[in-house]
Amino acid sequence: MTSTQTSTATGKFMNSAQLLEHWQGHRNLTRRVIEAFPEKDLFEFSLAGMRTFAKMAVELISIGGPALRGIVENKTDALDEEAFVPSTKEELLAKWDEETVVIHDYFNRIPEERFQESFNLFGQYEFPVYQNIMYFIDNEIHHRGQGYVYLRALGIEPPFFWERFAV
Amino acid sequence: MTSTQTSTATGKFMNSAQLLEHWQGHRNLTRRVIEAFPEKDLFEFSLAGMRTFAKMAVELISIGGPALRGIVENKTDALDEEAFVPSTKEELLAKWDEETVVIHDYFNRIPEERFQESFNLFGQYEFPVYQNIMYFIDNEIHHRGQGYVYLRALGIEPPFFWERFAV
Repeated sequence: MTSTQTSTATGKFMNSAQLLEHWQGHRNLTRRVIEAFPEKDLFEFSLAGMRTFAKMAVELISIGGPALRGIVENKTDALDEEAFVPSTKEELLAKWDEETVVIHDYFNRIPEERFQESFNLFGQYEFPVYQNIMYFIDNEIHHRGQGYVYLRALGIEPPFFWERFAV
Repeated sequence: MTSTQTSTATGKFMNSAQLLEHWQGHRNLTRRVIEAFPEKDLFEFSLAGMRTFAKMAVELISIGGPALRGIVENKTDALDEEAFVPSTKEELLAKWDEETVVIHDYFNRIPEERFQESFNLFGQYEFPVYQNIMYFIDNEIHHRGQGYVYLRALGIEPPFFWERFAV
């Protein structure tokens, strides 16, 4: 490689507004996956001894908004997956929508330079902030992919993976 | 929000070298998921009428390297998922490793400004280059999450999701 080609890889890939839109697009798709489950199956169905999709969705809810609050407020409170225990799909979706606003607001309060700074997220995950945020998105896609298998096993066609902001 | 807070969201989130490392970390994990399947199950096992994990891995192979070649060489040849038909795990892993090098080399040949430019990938997916590349990674995490369900259904413990470059 020439030095010109090498220098390329240190340049900007995407900006933070684009990353936030990307994340919220994924969250919109995950919301539609939650909706696609029959109420009973959302809370009871699983494969291979894994968690129900409701449990996975609660995990996602317990990460995104609380993590961004921690980053913005420099707090290292532990991750708490027991703070929210929904008993209906409606309750789960309502909380999901609340967190959509929290994520939007708190993400936009992170000063640009902090994305590259290290932070001890939840008092446990000491990584650059951008890596922690990428992890939230990766983790959501990972579990949602598992939700797709659950839906197919239930004979339900999942939403198109590539449609992010469709309603 | 104040104007200072709003301006934050247009700043740099991560650079392209970090994105490439992130992607190759995911590819390293996917490689270990392929390895975790017994040879026969890799090519024959599936749940809910879905594809085998070998088919999913071939899809991933048919996207990453060929897409980057298309972007760098400004070619819009169609996606071809039939070009590589492995019959053994060894063959699949060898091709995976070849593509690791292709992805490294071609990603580093993309000039920084092109990530924000639109390109008609495979003559079919007209999006900014950064969005197409994010999609490759998302798609890999999505299908690998499904592979995790297959492994668990087979009674096999998958690799840790958060270990990317472990061997």
